[in-house]
Amino acid sequence: MNSLGRIFRIHIFGESHGPIVGLILDGCPSGISLSIADFFIDIQRRKSGAAGTTSRLEEDMPDIISGVFNDKTTGAPITILFKNTDKRSVDYESLRNTPRPGHADFVLDKKFKGFNDYRGGGHSSGRLTLCLVAAGVIAKKILNNIFIKAELINAGGNENIEAAIAKAIEQQDSIGGIVECRVSNLPIGWGDPFFDSVESMIAHAVFSIPAVKGIEFGSGFKAADMKGSVHNDAITNSLGHTATNHSGGINGGITNGNELVFRVAIKPTSSTPQMQNTWNKVSDAMEPMQVKGRHDLCIALRVPVVVEAVTALIFADLMLLQSIDK
Amino acid sequence: MNSLGRIFRIHIFGESHGPIVGLILDGCPSGISLSIADFFIDIQRRKSGAAGTTSRLEEDMPDIISGVFNDKTTGAPITILFKNTDKRSVDYESLRNTPRPGHADFVLDKKFKGFNDYRGGGHSSGRLTLCLVAAGVIAKKILNNIFIKAELINAGGNENIEAAIAKAIEQQDSIGGIVECRVSNLPIGWGDPFFDSVESMIAHAVFSIPAVKGIEFGSGFKAADMKGSVHNDAITNSLGHTATNHSGGINGGITNGNELVFRVAIKPTSSTPQMQNTWNKVSDAMEPMQVKGRHDLCIALRVPVVVEAVTALIFADLMLLQSIDK
Amino acid sequence: MNSLGRIFRIHIFGESHGPIVGLILDGCPSGISLSIADFFIDIQRRKSGAAGTTSRLEEDMPDIISGVFNDKTTGAPITILFKNTDKRSVDYESLRNTPRPGHADFVLDKKFKGFNDYRGGGHSSGRLTLCLVAAGVIAKKILNNIFIKAELINAGGNENIEAAIAKAIEQQDSIGGIVECRVSNLPIGWGDPFFDSVESMIAHAVFSIPAVKGIEFGSGFKAADMKGSVHNDAITNSLGHTATNHSGGINGGITNGNELVFRVAIKPTSSTPQMQNTWNKVSDAMEPMQVKGRHDLCIALRVPVVVEAVTALIFADLMLLQSIDK
Amino acid sequence: MNSLGRIFRIHIFGESHGPIVGLILDGCPSGISLSIADFFIDIQRRKSGAAGTTSRLEEDMPDIISGVFNDKTTGAPITILFKNTDKRSVDYESLRNTPRPGHADFVLDKKFKGFNDYRGGGHSSGRLTLCLVAAGVIAKKILNNIFIKAELINAGGNENIEAAIAKAIEQQDSIGGIVECRVSNLPIGWGDPFFDSVESMIAHAVFSIPAVKGIEFGSGFKAADMKGSVHNDAITNSLGHTATNHSGGINGGITNGNELVFRVAIKPTSSTPQMQNTWNKVSDAMEPMQVKGRHDLCIALRVPVVVEAVTALIFADLMLLQSIDK
Repeated sequence: MNSLGRIFRIHIFGESHGPIVGLILDGCPSGISLSIADFFIDIQRRKSGAAGTTSRLEEDMPDIISGVFNDKTTGAPITILFKNTDKRSVDYESLRNTPRPGHADFVLDKKFKGFNDYRGGGHSSGRLTLCLVAAGVIAKKILNNIFIKAELINAGGNENIEAAIAKAIEQQDSIGGIVECRVSNLPIGWGDPFFDSVESMIAHAVFSIPAVKGIEFGSGFKAADMKGSVHNDAITNSLGHTATNHSGGINGGITNGNELVFRVAIKPTSSTPQMQNTWNKVSDAMEPMQVKGRHDLCIALRVPVVVEAVTALIFADLMLLQSIDK
Repeated sequence: MNSLGRIFRIHIFGESHGPIVGLILDGCPSGISLSIADFFIDIQRRKSGAAGTTSRLEEDMPDIISGVFNDKTTGAPITILFKNTDKRSVDYESLRNTPRPGHADFVLDKKFKGFNDYRGGGHSSGRLTLCLVAAGVIAKKILNNIFIKAELINAGGNENIEAAIAKAIEQQDSIGGIVECRVSNLPIGWGDPFFDSVESMIAHAVFSIPAVKGIEFGSGFKAADMKGSVHNDAITNSLGHTATNHSGGINGGITNGNELVFRVAIKPTSSTPQMQNTWNKVSDAMEPMQVKGRHDLCIALRVPVVVEAVTALIFADLMLLQSIDK
Repeated sequence: MNSLGRIFRIHIFGESHGPIVGLILDGCPSGISLSIADFFIDIQRRKSGAAGTTSRLEEDMPDIISGVFNDKTTGAPITILFKNTDKRSVDYESLRNTPRPGHADFVLDKKFKGFNDYRGGGHSSGRLTLCLVAAGVIAKKILNNIFIKAELINAGGNENIEAAIAKAIEQQDSIGGIVECRVSNLPIGWGDPFFDSVESMIAHAVFSIPAVKGIEFGSGFKAADMKGSVHNDAITNSLGHTATNHSGGINGGITNGNELVFRVAIKPTSSTPQMQNTWNKVSDAMEPMQVKGRHDLCIALRVPVVVEAVTALIFADLMLLQSIDK
Repeated sequence: MNSLGRIFRIHIFGESHGPIVGLILDGCPSGISLSIADFFIDIQRRKSGAAGTTSRLEEDMPDIISGVFNDKTTGAPITILFKNTDKRSVDYESLRNTPRPGHADFVLDKKFKGFNDYRGGGHSSGRLTLCLVAAGVIAKKILNNIFIKAELINAGGNENIEAAIAKAIEQQDSIGGIVECRVSNLPIGWGDPFFDSVESMIAHAVFSIPAVKGIEFGSGFKAADMKGSVHNDAITNSLGHTATNHSGGINGGITNGNELVFRVAIKPTSSTPQMQNTWNKVSDAMEPMQVKGRHDLCIALRVPVVVEAVTALIFADLMLLQSIDK
């Protein structure tokens, strides 16, 4: 299902080498100011071009074709299209019989019985994260004075990101990284016990982002090694402020009024320039191959704005759901 | 929303100190053998009684009141009730004005404007994981020869679980742990790109379990430090078997036919016997308090069967969804 | 799926001749007064006992086992159970091979491959409308000063209900009827264009009630014969009041502030005392049969309160959804 | 929510006078042949141009921008766009202060606080039924040898459609009609008791179509006047064929293997050429007005193919859901 959200819902569509990728955002309240310029900063943050990113350059100009009238949202579904322009499908023809290691080529072929658009990963391409970023821009507008900030705090095991990228370029091998996201100014009481816990909802959304392999809230995996007397955050006042924040701003699945903190593990880009072995469909044997096409050496560089976007989608949905209780 | 699943759906209800907790399982196919004895092993695995677990002892006898006829599922919703018998509400009266650190007491009071059943955590109690375990038993039956096995591989930072528990008892402080779950014999092609990735669905379900603060698939957070040439799992044959399994059995959100592996971080039980400080609602000041009631020193001991259960729920749902494509 | 609603959700379960039927109501706000006495009037209205209704007499005492604490809703799922006491399963044994005309016996056997609980219609029994009525009581409380009133305006083609029933008893044949429902004091603006139109949502809910075969809003089927200049309701003031109400209070799927009016067609009870022919599974031939068991001659008598209930469920959901826009 | 379906899901978007209307179809299996030519017949059937239809002429050429590769569905979301070309927004400027009787102008203005795109009804326009028709084409392909046929059997109370249209043109007043839909070759066992009864699902979808005010299955409202011994359809053989079909092919909400039959009441087009009275927002008084723009005198002429389309959407969803049980 290419949809997320209960009240504030996103639907995404398109393929890496099709004409267009895009999204519908349904359930957005009317009367919110929205123009193309609102999207530029976040789209720019996701773009390639820096060292360690792909040489595929897309204009990524949003075309708002519904749901906005006189620069305000109307309450009807908002549809935004992005053209795919700089695609070179020929790069992928040779890969049809040699599924790339770490990629979804093999499983997509099986799942869709060979009918999937295999070019550039088709619908599974990271290109669709552009749609997530665009929806996130609108979600952030709804969230007003709730601030979401994600950044890459570690790449290839190195806290010096630039040095890590330089080394990856030198070694011509892809690397991963850790993205940390912080949300401030959240009210107390968003989220539910059990299935709609804030952790459940955020994790669901964050694992939608390709290359994510782990998530932890607050002290996360370190909490498993801590004693209760240390991990518990002492409540200090009637606003629920706590002396420490090992819980990462969530108790029992519900926001507690402190900063929400989580970290996300990004695996190294599957498309490394290194020679690799894979099974060849025609020869039915393992063979060396090298991934062609234009790829990011460190996709993690481009992930923070996507993490912000899906986090914003979840909290915009929670804000609208929460308004019900008032 | 106290519901999970698209086709195979669970709804849970009840409070720690109410008369009954229970569940509905809707969407279960007809004709599956089911009797009370099927539940005993997993319910026993979740039970307290061992060193480091609470002294609250419940019989936990499932009462199947709908959806089963002549020991077979009928296709109608299956409802199972569990009586709460060994409850001592008096323990909790004194806590109304002193929200326990690390617990949801404070946020529940705010979220529900003081109307929540505060006794024993009310609806947010770990007691409701009994309902998850019961549903998991049915899900496992549907999954036939797909095997799900979770175990506690680490407690309080110690890989020797018994030693860790002994130390926690000696120190009278609660501890956490790491649960690892492995699923074997999964077919290729379950899950979807983006929002319904297997990681999204499993993480959603696993974060429903109280005390879970992190999850990672395959190499997980270690993947962030690896190079692509190392992390990528080489496909070795037409069945998709890979030489390594850093991806944990999932590519692009979709099962790849290898063993699915994930690890879950469990924080130390919030109810530690140690003295702690918390804000007192009456005095509006911080005061020392000690959590009364009967609690687990290491709740992580009882979590593996719950992790298995929610994993089984997700895969039973995916199995039913998958049958659509055939 | 035995569930209805987006925010205010009902789940129903149980069988006619099982131990219990019941419901979960999830998404109900906290702090609403609720006690067993609240249910008595509507449950009584649904009860049998009058001329033309079945001699099966159930106590129908609601047992609220979760979601209510100190006579107020807590915000957690509300679960209500009803015991089945006056059941005579022996009546149904002879029917296993002779599917009753007009009943679901035949299709349930096929759909569930013979595993369904066939006694008294099993999960498909009209007995489960008791759960709808109970949920409706809570929904009506939420709706405050919005008033929902349904009544039987016609039975067996006769506007004199008593005379119609007397004739049915004399002829020993079942009859149907028309239920009209009116909702007053609805605000302007509930419902959505297209799939979540108020007509779509109400029709969806009303056709959940066994024996319903038609629904029409406002002038309904008569509108098909009218000219636009006659059918259009002239808006007379800033509150949207209209000079006529051919649209039944809905324009473009959205409430317009006038009285909502719809009518529902109820077919005659399938279990007529008359001899009928049906296919016999054993002989594989048509044979005469007579429906045993205790049945209503005019089930339509008991339907108005059920129509009110499902209408209240829909509007409670719309009210909670609507609060989002504010 | 601009979405319909559980497994086979449609999302619609766009406004009457925006650049584009369109749809996403998510959950469509891979490998189904699909090209632009497949859409021509049904799109043509919906088109205006005949006597009694609007003079707005759109090319309605579908642009498939995702989900289809080499003329086969890929399993990814299918997105189809239609350009709006022949629009004259100037016609609607004068209507801003005079909500048209029978239209949604007044309620949309209230619901969306004046931010809705009011031109030509905006997102509520009948133009979006084009998206339903396009989705219906794909649904019909999935349904293979299940045949859905809807036709206008009555217009303005006259069974001679041509005569009725001629009279409406002469009188310069809009008229309604009755559409009957028949579905043959349906298997036994689709649909569920209660909330997902076939009647509930079809009625939900059919009331999504603008101007629909009633629906009845089988004998429908006439059933209310019949005796049980007459209404019950005698089962004649092991295939479930019945001697009569008063139930319209559905028992207990579930298909019974006989022809499915329902009728839909279409109100007269709200935009009649006649002078009408309405409240004027500026003068706050009732005033005469005449609807400008280009409109259908008998929108019912164009509805049958839309009824077929939404019926196909529901049955395609049920077919995919049903495959789960096998």
